[in-house]
Amino acid sequence: METQTIRAEEKETGRLEAFSDGVFSIAITLLALDLAVPHLGSASSTQVLGEALARQWPSYVAFVTSFFTILVMWVNHHLVFKLIRKPSARLMFANGFLLMMTTTVPFSTRLLSEYFGLPGARLACAVYSGTFVLISVGYILVWQSLLHDRTLFKSDVSERVIETITRNYRLGTPLYLVATAAAFFSVDVSVGICTALWIFWAATTKNS
Amino acid sequence: METQTIRAEEKETGRLEAFSDGVFSIAITLLALDLAVPHLGSASSTQVLGEALARQWPSYVAFVTSFFTILVMWVNHHLVFKLIRKPSARLMFANGFLLMMTTTVPFSTRLLSEYFGLPGARLACAVYSGTFVLISVGYILVWQSLLHDRTLFKSDVSERVIETITRNYRLGTPLYLVATAAAFFSVDVSVGICTALWIFWAATTKNS
Amino acid sequence: METQTIRAEEKETGRLEAFSDGVFSIAITLLALDLAVPHLGSASSTQVLGEALARQWPSYVAFVTSFFTILVMWVNHHLVFKLIRKPSARLMFANGFLLMMTTTVPFSTRLLSEYFGLPGARLACAVYSGTFVLISVGYILVWQSLLHDRTLFKSDVSERVIETITRNYRLGTPLYLVATAAAFFSVDVSVGICTALWIFWAATTKNS
Amino acid sequence: METQTIRAEEKETGRLEAFSDGVFSIAITLLALDLAVPHLGSASSTQVLGEALARQWPSYVAFVTSFFTILVMWVNHHLVFKLIRKPSARLMFANGFLLMMTTTVPFSTRLLSEYFGLPGARLACAVYSGTFVLISVGYILVWQSLLHDRTLFKSDVSERVIETITRNYRLGTPLYLVATAAAFFSVDVSVGICTALWIFWAATTKNS
Repeated sequence: METQTIRAEEKETGRLEAFSDGVFSIAITLLALDLAVPHLGSASSTQVLGEALARQWPSYVAFVTSFFTILVMWVNHHLVFKLIRKPSARLMFANGFLLMMTTTVPFSTRLLSEYFGLPGARLACAVYSGTFVLISVGYILVWQSLLHDRTLFKSDVSERVIETITRNYRLGTPLYLVATAAAFFSVDVSVGICTALWIFWAATTKNS
Repeated sequence: METQTIRAEEKETGRLEAFSDGVFSIAITLLALDLAVPHLGSASSTQVLGEALARQWPSYVAFVTSFFTILVMWVNHHLVFKLIRKPSARLMFANGFLLMMTTTVPFSTRLLSEYFGLPGARLACAVYSGTFVLISVGYILVWQSLLHDRTLFKSDVSERVIETITRNYRLGTPLYLVATAAAFFSVDVSVGICTALWIFWAATTKNS
Repeated sequence: METQTIRAEEKETGRLEAFSDGVFSIAITLLALDLAVPHLGSASSTQVLGEALARQWPSYVAFVTSFFTILVMWVNHHLVFKLIRKPSARLMFANGFLLMMTTTVPFSTRLLSEYFGLPGARLACAVYSGTFVLISVGYILVWQSLLHDRTLFKSDVSERVIETITRNYRLGTPLYLVATAAAFFSVDVSVGICTALWIFWAATTKNS
Repeated sequence: METQTIRAEEKETGRLEAFSDGVFSIAITLLALDLAVPHLGSASSTQVLGEALARQWPSYVAFVTSFFTILVMWVNHHLVFKLIRKPSARLMFANGFLLMMTTTVPFSTRLLSEYFGLPGARLACAVYSGTFVLISVGYILVWQSLLHDRTLFKSDVSERVIETITRNYRLGTPLYLVATAAAFFSVDVSVGICTALWIFWAATTKNS
């Protein structure tokens, strides 16, 4: 009987994770849809095509930064959900907001790629960094839905683990807010901060 | 031997859920593909681009409403399938109809975004709300396939739970029919009803 | 020790199914991407937009037919894979061919929708039905990879079940070949056969 | 207690595999999005449309080659991950790089299809083969993350299996480098090598 109950709970979280994995993996794969093939026709030579591809470098930078930022977020999602025994309605909708903002990353990446080097670049970059502000807010909402009802945690999750994550989550939003504000002065600084952040988070990811 | 049987049944439902999760998560992620990047080129400035992005607000409203409506539907799907022990052929095709209508939500969302504020808006909005009528019919078909063969339910599903869901499901179709009819008089009222509905359903979602 | 082995095998099939479910659910969801929003701008009225949407009826027919054909195929895939204990390399590549042809269904559906009522319709329809010929060949390849090595079947799969499926699979290819040949005389007859086939298969699907 | 631990580890790998399966299945399905429907309108006849479709043969070749190359990679991913007991942070990011390069295959396939027979073909083909060089590097990074911490392997993975895979992985990168270099002399030779490679790998795939 006991076993039955535990199984059912696992299955529940399982489906929430499967749905989230679906959204993360689709959003991360759609990023590559925006790598544009230059239409040069028969006028192309190795050199002309090479230059056309090279001129698109901002879209490659935006692609790599967005890909690894979503990847770091997915790893983070993975680590948090490992602590959860069963979902609540509030958790499902907080997670929904997080996923919604994640699905807009290909849009803001497209926007940044299109306006890189053009007069609208700073606003485009602010929208780009601003998306990550809202995603970090999404993580806080997910985490608060768990703090709100601690019975959702697995029984072996220690108070110390909870405190550490609570402290870490306080960092994301202000750091991305700085990146967003920086965008109005320098696109390079803003993208640099976003890049530094995913490298930092990737480098400090612990082994479960 | 008993154990073997139980396992096999779980796996069956598991794959139906995985397929459904795939369709839900792809449909919900494709919504963001329709957030358009304005093509302003070098004529753009922070202000010009900002105004162009701001002018697209109807597509943001439609995006958020569609996203959360699909999310609420997925949560609902999740809660119903938790009651199911094994699928029948009829359930699989009722679920298929439900999924088919769900995959058209990005289309009707695109339609609504394109005609918001234009003369065709009322029809576009009626198509939009009408999609949700058909999805709610899909849920009724799924539910009836279960009522038709109650051995599909898990043994611990009480008659009261079944009655409560049966009663709740009677609400969706008429409410979305009202939203569809309202579209021919006022787009705002129709979208307002759709928005109110997902907020209401999200707010009243019970913790499993 | 025995348990360990059984678990590992389940996991193997599980991932092959997960990958297949992913491809099926994406292909089936992408169908809706080709439902086109008419671009009428401010010249649209309820009537003009309504007529423009109504004129697209061939793409709705193609959408529904393709959706349910892929759905029936997925249900079929589901039923066959329930018999499998573990995959072989040959099974994985036969399944790969089947999936490849499934991913081209949105293309052939687009082709049929575009040329419906135009001079090229018959060829477009032959390509459409021809895709299903190749998918039915894919199912035969999958089935033969199992017949080739019967240790892949679960131990409780009876000879009679195998014979029944072998017999049923002989029908698909010739029937779709007839639909393909019919396309050169009448698009309606060809699409009619394809529609009749998925309805027939859906109606005769047994409860596992 | 022991059981609990084993379960938790399995779940971990499970989600990493689910995410990877998601990316693989989406990337492989998106390939078919680039099969273009010729827009001939009412000027089309069976013959004209037939010729237009036939003229697109390079995109069919590129589609099939890319599809089976990704499929072989997924099969390979499947076989490697069967050896893994639990993931490390390093494994997750190495796997992330591998997935990122996989998502760019539809882009490089589109590039190759567009420039086949045009002056830019050689560069386009070098980019195409070069993508596979980077994917093979991704596999080496994944494998090295496992060699770096052998506790990640399941306990029943023998030293001989590890050595065999280590030896096999040394082949991929140089072979794709040859294909990339060959592209600057002959597109046919380069695509031929890529095709020969997936056929060879498919043919030599062992039954787990």
